[in-house]
Amino acid sequence: RINGDRLWESLMEMAKIGPGVAGGNNRQTLTDADKEGRELFAKWCEEAGLTLGVDQMGTMFARREGTDPDALPVYVGSHLDTQPTGGKYDGVLGVLGGLEVIRSLNDLGIKTRHPIVVTNWTNEEGTRFAPAMLASGVFAGMHELDWAYDRTDAKGLRFGDELERIGWRGEEQVGARKMHAFFELHIEQGPILEAEGKDIGVVTHGQGLWWLEVTLTGKDAHTGSTPMNMRVNAGLGMARVTEAVHRIAMAHQPNAVGAVGQANVYPNSRNVIPGKAVFTIDIRSPELDKLTSMREQIEAEAAKIAEELGLGLSIEPTGHFDPVTFDENCVKAVRDAADRLGYSHRNIVSGAGHDACWINRLYPTAMVMCPCVDGLSHNEAEDISKEWATAGADVLFHAVVETAGI
Amino acid sequence: RINGDRLWESLMEMAKIGPGVAGGNNRQTLTDADKEGRELFAKWCEEAGLTLGVDQMGTMFARREGTDPDALPVYVGSHLDTQPTGGKYDGVLGVLGGLEVIRSLNDLGIKTRHPIVVTNWTNEEGTRFAPAMLASGVFAGMHELDWAYDRTDAKGLRFGDELERIGWRGEEQVGARKMHAFFELHIEQGPILEAEGKDIGVVTHGQGLWWLEVTLTGKDAHTGSTPMNMRVNAGLGMARVTEAVHRIAMAHQPNAVGAVGQANVYPNSRNVIPGKAVFTIDIRSPELDKLTSMREQIEAEAAKIAEELGLGLSIEPTGHFDPVTFDENCVKAVRDAADRLGYSHRNIVSGAGHDACWINRLYPTAMVMCPCVDGLSHNEAEDISKEWATAGADVLFHAVVETAGI
Ligand SMILES: NC(=O)NCCC(=O)O
Ligand SMILES: NC(=O)NCCC(=O)O
Repeated sequence: RINGDRLWESLMEMAKIGPGVAGGNNRQTLTDADKEGRELFAKWCEEAGLTLGVDQMGTMFARREGTDPDALPVYVGSHLDTQPTGGKYDGVLGVLGGLEVIRSLNDLGIKTRHPIVVTNWTNEEGTRFAPAMLASGVFAGMHELDWAYDRTDAKGLRFGDELERIGWRGEEQVGARKMHAFFELHIEQGPILEAEGKDIGVVTHGQGLWWLEVTLTGKDAHTGSTPMNMRVNAGLGMARVTEAVHRIAMAHQPNAVGAVGQANVYPNSRNVIPGKAVFTIDIRSPELDKLTSMREQIEAEAAKIAEELGLGLSIEPTGHFDPVTFDENCVKAVRDAADRLGYSHRNIVSGAGHDACWINRLYPTAMVMCPCVDGLSHNEAEDISKEWATAGADVLFHAVVETAGI
Repeated sequence: RINGDRLWESLMEMAKIGPGVAGGNNRQTLTDADKEGRELFAKWCEEAGLTLGVDQMGTMFARREGTDPDALPVYVGSHLDTQPTGGKYDGVLGVLGGLEVIRSLNDLGIKTRHPIVVTNWTNEEGTRFAPAMLASGVFAGMHELDWAYDRTDAKGLRFGDELERIGWRGEEQVGARKMHAFFELHIEQGPILEAEGKDIGVVTHGQGLWWLEVTLTGKDAHTGSTPMNMRVNAGLGMARVTEAVHRIAMAHQPNAVGAVGQANVYPNSRNVIPGKAVFTIDIRSPELDKLTSMREQIEAEAAKIAEELGLGLSIEPTGHFDPVTFDENCVKAVRDAADRLGYSHRNIVSGAGHDACWINRLYPTAMVMCPCVDGLSHNEAEDISKEWATAGADVLFHAVVETAGI
């Protein structure tokens, strides 16, 4: 069993870096706070006797040697970056849970046959720089490195420049590493495990996703003196598309979600009819048909709305992955671990995207989930209990050690 | 007749200060650009032999003496502040048209019986600090001075502090001045005069207005892993209220308008269901019944939408004026001037609010309007011709001189 108190202490320690405004965290990727979080993690890795590698995307790989010089490492980890108003556990639990696996092995003096590598993937959240899971996506060959470097944030700052600025651009080629397997522990970010009183989610699948960025172009005009029939109101178009996304997601129930997360109008003045609206759509489903159908319907509906209002329309896809089926053997290792440890569990579909979803395309991968209070995540009030974290890390420990061999 | 070339040159000169991004202006109130605009205007006033007074709201009063020491001045003017993406004429034409009246009197060596005072009212636009027509509103006793000082912009900066910072807080008590009459020249900001080929709008009435600031409170949550039925989506609520404002305005046709100008969701992240939305509603009508009825229906509809979605709702009125009827004699002075000068004209209702609307509560007031291209205003592409500007200033000149007496 891992040391739950130590894991919890490290989680609380990390949460001090990049504090939010309401008890959570704002440690967005490639900010000064991210840099500080990385430094603390690197220090802990060194103390645990690990060797740190950093690739050109800034992803951190902390390695514990195995006994078999020919064996590929078992990778374990998640991400330390957070949402602008994020929680203390989303991602962090997976990285520090991985570190706790190492610390427990050190405590017990256990040597595994395969090396074990704890990983902190850069820019999982995708808020500052879309798309999400950017570094693992480059690792999996989904994106070019230069394309990733060229992603810009809302202020126009480039990913590549910001990575350089915080001093975490490594030399190692992205994707050069081979893996025996990859395991990621993560909070559910949804309500199912807590509602059913299960300790562990054995993640068998992940939802597919489309992120679309929509720009509607109308005409800035005076709210008072412009007759209703002369308006080309981009804000009204945004409102209608927002409603359409909701309606279309509801029409695809069950197993489908959709929402507008970012919404901006220009010039954003009380007495100006918005001449431009820029907003993002996020739709997901574990079923490819539904995902495709939602996208088609939303695009058709947006085109209709734009035409009716006389608006210009552009829709740019900024993120995408197909639904994921995790590796049978890795999933079994997670389920067996939960059984062996006596934790209640159920199969579950990941509602969120995770680095594991990309790595699963290359190497045998699975995920362990633990409950979170009210299913709340991407919220500073995100919460879990020490017991839940401990159970998750215990199952991770057993699945990893089983897979790495003794 | 006034000197149209000189007027135009001054307009172009002023437009160099606080340039926009698309040929217009961003000279928002109490910014460094506003300060610079005021300095240029003050210089011109001095060159024209005027004496400058500044009140505690920063409103500038440039006085040309009359021949009768007991006669109250005729005031003329408008505002030099602009929208964030505003045009070169909205407000500016009224101030520099007033200055051109003085310059023309100087050219002609004409002395009027009543003094004439050219006025630049502070913060007419109301974008940076709501409400609009703030300084004229304090002048008219609609707002307390301290309340006006406490208005804050989006960054939380106080009106009073910003006025102090740019060095334009005067000593003169606001509203201390008595007026014989007030005339304001302004572009129509709507399409009617151009469409009908009229040179001049004789403004008989002004629309009434309500500005409402709405806050909807939901729950930030993950866009992927939060089931549709567990969402408390403030962005969806904003979309529905935006649509309701449009629908309700349409149901009150003719003589009613309504739109959402500012729209903001929080945390404004692609993969977070907005937990908060803050947006502004602008509704107007020249008919008090319609204005009241729109407000009632919108508030009822917003309450229903909030209840359906489980959202918290607050609606704060941030601006209001009743429909305005301008002074019969002043309106006649404008119409007679247009007739005398041979300009085509029609009666018109002002769609926008103007400083004249507040001053009309205290002293005999009227407005002169000239056309603008496509009725476009609050847009950097706002445009007028030199001929239109000249006609407007000619009519202003005659109405003012007629009222000031020779
Ligand atoms: N786990 C998580 O929240 N990842 C961010 C990408 C997503 O929105 O699913
Ligand atoms: N004239 C003008 O645009 N004034 C600003 C106040 C309003 O929105 O009517």
